[in-house]
Amino acid sequence: MTRALVLLSGGQDSTTCLYVAKKKSDEVHALTINYAQRHDIEIGAALKIAALANVASHEVVIVSQILRGTSPLTDKTQQVQTYESADVLPGGLENTFVPARNMLFLTIAANRAYVAECDSIYIGVSQEDYGGYPDCRQEFLDAMEMSMSTALSRNIRIVAPLIYKNKMQTVNLARDLQDCWNALSYSHTCYQGMVPPCGQCHACLLRARGFAQAGFADPLLERLDKGSS
Amino acid sequence: MTRALVLLSGGQDSTTCLYVAKKKSDEVHALTINYAQRHDIEIGAALKIAALANVASHEVVIVSQILRGTSPLTDKTQQVQTYESADVLPGGLENTFVPARNMLFLTIAANRAYVAECDSIYIGVSQEDYGGYPDCRQEFLDAMEMSMSTALSRNIRIVAPLIYKNKMQTVNLARDLQDCWNALSYSHTCYQGMVPPCGQCHACLLRARGFAQAGFADPLLERLDKGSS
Repeated sequence: MTRALVLLSGGQDSTTCLYVAKKKSDEVHALTINYAQRHDIEIGAALKIAALANVASHEVVIVSQILRGTSPLTDKTQQVQTYESADVLPGGLENTFVPARNMLFLTIAANRAYVAECDSIYIGVSQEDYGGYPDCRQEFLDAMEMSMSTALSRNIRIVAPLIYKNKMQTVNLARDLQDCWNALSYSHTCYQGMVPPCGQCHACLLRARGFAQAGFADPLLERLDKGSS
Repeated sequence: MTRALVLLSGGQDSTTCLYVAKKKSDEVHALTINYAQRHDIEIGAALKIAALANVASHEVVIVSQILRGTSPLTDKTQQVQTYESADVLPGGLENTFVPARNMLFLTIAANRAYVAECDSIYIGVSQEDYGGYPDCRQEFLDAMEMSMSTALSRNIRIVAPLIYKNKMQTVNLARDLQDCWNALSYSHTCYQGMVPPCGQCHACLLRARGFAQAGFADPLLERLDKGSS
């Protein structure tokens, strides 16, 4: 009996991860962390997607005030950067970096995985698309897996199915996962928290380019165009 | 200019660490984490000690609901184990273990150290006395230091001056640190949150044995005997 815990933000990548975990594990639990995001709409997306995926449990943990920094994702006085196209995205650290964010997410996941006796934690990070964020790289995940095993005296794997995939490859993976495409139509990506998505923030541009390169329409935009809820 | 962040619980060990950090660093910040402890008295001790130590800043972060488990330190329906003497303390994992507790503390410290540009984080863990807790061992700290440096793309050292010291050695260290002894008279250790301390929980027994073996009266008990506040 395999049991997985999935960090589900409600975005495209974690939604795809959730369906990978469903395919690979006998039982799947979802954990959503609300860290004072600009937009509660992402939490709503996670709730909807966890229900669609029929997970064994879904918990939302609120961690406002835990993380500090100057990111516009936690500080509403800051502006999210916008860009003309995905081709001009910077390579370095962006102002959306929240120091130790993924450490916090994985630490809370480690606690819950220990209590629920899960053997793996799924996280939807990709060093292809988010290499500018150091905590989206494999070397960080390796170090965290070691931190977890030494902290807990128990081996819990950190699984990052998208770590070496770009958005196009993630879209193609989602096409192959049963029911994932429909769930993606409820996923939320926009850093500005807009519906329909703003189309100009880093996250929107990467998402749009991924679907375009894979040759599919974004199911979120299709659903919004149809006006269904 | 060296800048240290000290995880200050208000207990004996973190208080001693604070004074080690004061000796070694130009500027010292204190961070206290309230994780739904049974006893707010420990937070009060931290506030008093941080003020006595004249730290550059002291922040208390509340993280209730973040950690789960069956520890009586977070679950008030559980009983703290008591013992006849320090000689019969178990070697294995005790029921006071909170899974990923020190991971969470160090993760929040990593976030704050990044923002405040600290070069080191001090933590008062000891694998001599708390070897039953896996997250009090050097191998865990090494893994966490790697997790932090990969998550942040910045090297922040984790300093654990007490890691190889037993309580007697910690008492002797405290004797040599200016003003530390007086601060210790305000430190709180008892797992049951009692003042005067219960004298029968794991933490009380280790503390009492340390002072006895070092040949000094516990300044906390001396202060309480005198009835000063």
